[in-house]
Amino acid sequence: MRVVKSIQPLRQLIKQAKQKGKTIGFVPTMGALHEGHASLLKKSRKENDISILSIFINPTQFGPHEDLNKYPREFNHDRRLAEQGGVDILFYPSAKTIYPREYLTYIEVNGITNLLCGCTRPGHFKGVTTIVGKLINIINPDCMYVGQKDAQQAVVIKKMVSDLNFDVDVKVCPIIREPDGLAMSSRNRYLSPQQRREAPILSQSLKKAKKIISSGERNPQKIIRLITSNIKQNSTGMIEYIECVNADTLTPLKILTGNILVALAVKFGSTRLIDNMVVRS
Amino acid sequence: MRVVKSIQPLRQLIKQAKQKGKTIGFVPTMGALHEGHASLLKKSRKENDISILSIFINPTQFGPHEDLNKYPREFNHDRRLAEQGGVDILFYPSAKTIYPREYLTYIEVNGITNLLCGCTRPGHFKGVTTIVGKLINIINPDCMYVGQKDAQQAVVIKKMVSDLNFDVDVKVCPIIREPDGLAMSSRNRYLSPQQRREAPILSQSLKKAKKIISSGERNPQKIIRLITSNIKQNSTGMIEYIECVNADTLTPLKILTGNILVALAVKFGSTRLIDNMVVRS
Repeated sequence: MRVVKSIQPLRQLIKQAKQKGKTIGFVPTMGALHEGHASLLKKSRKENDISILSIFINPTQFGPHEDLNKYPREFNHDRRLAEQGGVDILFYPSAKTIYPREYLTYIEVNGITNLLCGCTRPGHFKGVTTIVGKLINIINPDCMYVGQKDAQQAVVIKKMVSDLNFDVDVKVCPIIREPDGLAMSSRNRYLSPQQRREAPILSQSLKKAKKIISSGERNPQKIIRLITSNIKQNSTGMIEYIECVNADTLTPLKILTGNILVALAVKFGSTRLIDNMVVRS
Repeated sequence: MRVVKSIQPLRQLIKQAKQKGKTIGFVPTMGALHEGHASLLKKSRKENDISILSIFINPTQFGPHEDLNKYPREFNHDRRLAEQGGVDILFYPSAKTIYPREYLTYIEVNGITNLLCGCTRPGHFKGVTTIVGKLINIINPDCMYVGQKDAQQAVVIKKMVSDLNFDVDVKVCPIIREPDGLAMSSRNRYLSPQQRREAPILSQSLKKAKKIISSGERNPQKIIRLITSNIKQNSTGMIEYIECVNADTLTPLKILTGNILVALAVKFGSTRLIDNMVVRS
């Protein structure tokens, strides 16, 4: 595995590989690698000749009161996991490499970034689309792998790629869960032992909701009420949102039909967890 | 010359050329081709194996009260000129091809888009950077050629390309002028015979300003006053702005030093003309 910190040497490696006809798979991450990332990497390795994983904690996607400074930074651990996972090139740029002095340019997807997580995280998706656009331009991958855990992020990235004609295939990979159902996340480590015991209620509630929708329930309010009471009765979690939206466009649904995304964000203390399930009705 | 209207066939042609190791030069235009465009094309042909010229009147860079509807559309004339000029591929997409239904994504350069033309054309440069980003992604050129006539546009595009890590070399080519000094522009044809006779005052004033700066004048206000009185005394043009800024960053100058861009916008009736000169002091 090569670790590359600068853009020009990376471009050089990639151009050489492309000239030999090799395909490039790309997994963008903020580090703190876990089995979710490993599953993206595995898919990339299966489908491409060369897999590039980036580790960059992107400051522009954190709000002023969010957890940028305490976000886990553990490069040696990540490097080991990346190498074990079969990464060919690990791109690990500094903030100054990505956002040099007098940086001025942003990519923004309107509309679908103001719902769900966008309500409480203004500017978050603008930071995401900007860094992903930059990384696509630097790496020029054939395929890019993102996780369904961040369902809205996946839809927003796909929309950006399609709207701006980036020539890359975005593949969204299933959520990887702990044995008790908790969706893998770099933020799970912030949970206290009690919060960690309570947190599986999110996936349990979603699973129940999925079952009820599959058996014919068409009223989103009933689903939202069910999940709400389930979480409130079984945990100290503070609900930020629970929504039923179209899984492809994120449009809120009045009747549960088509590809339904049931998504939620719940805070356990200062730790914000998200989870979701898709139901095809 | 091949005329291509859709994105996929264009990508296919370009990929085939790239696989053979050919380099691609790209000249983006809004049609109504004139000798200014021809000079960009000539440079592209000299420096690249294949030259692609696009004709697309980009609706997102026109304000609601601007001249989108009356902007000259003369495809047959343009196609002839493109062919004579040695274009290999003419990309001529429809508005629907470029901005399909439910289009949501924009690229924006902050700061330097709020000065000069940005003051009276809010949103204009956001439209420009969005379409240029899309065209770079579609065409994947090695070099792109833009005119110094639109000095601010050239700086904004270079900034976007650098900030977002687009892998393309942006080359800014000199202004081409009519024999009497008027900068070539698709909008010159809107001028009445009297306005056309008056319009060369713009370049004449800039030339005088350049001479005075070259002989040591360091006070931008004196230069601005000189050009103002020159234009007012010799034409019916209404001055929108006259500015002395750093040619690379567009920062307004209090003392004329470094690479100085003297830029102006003047309206003759409803026709808005821009011109500029760069002085290295």
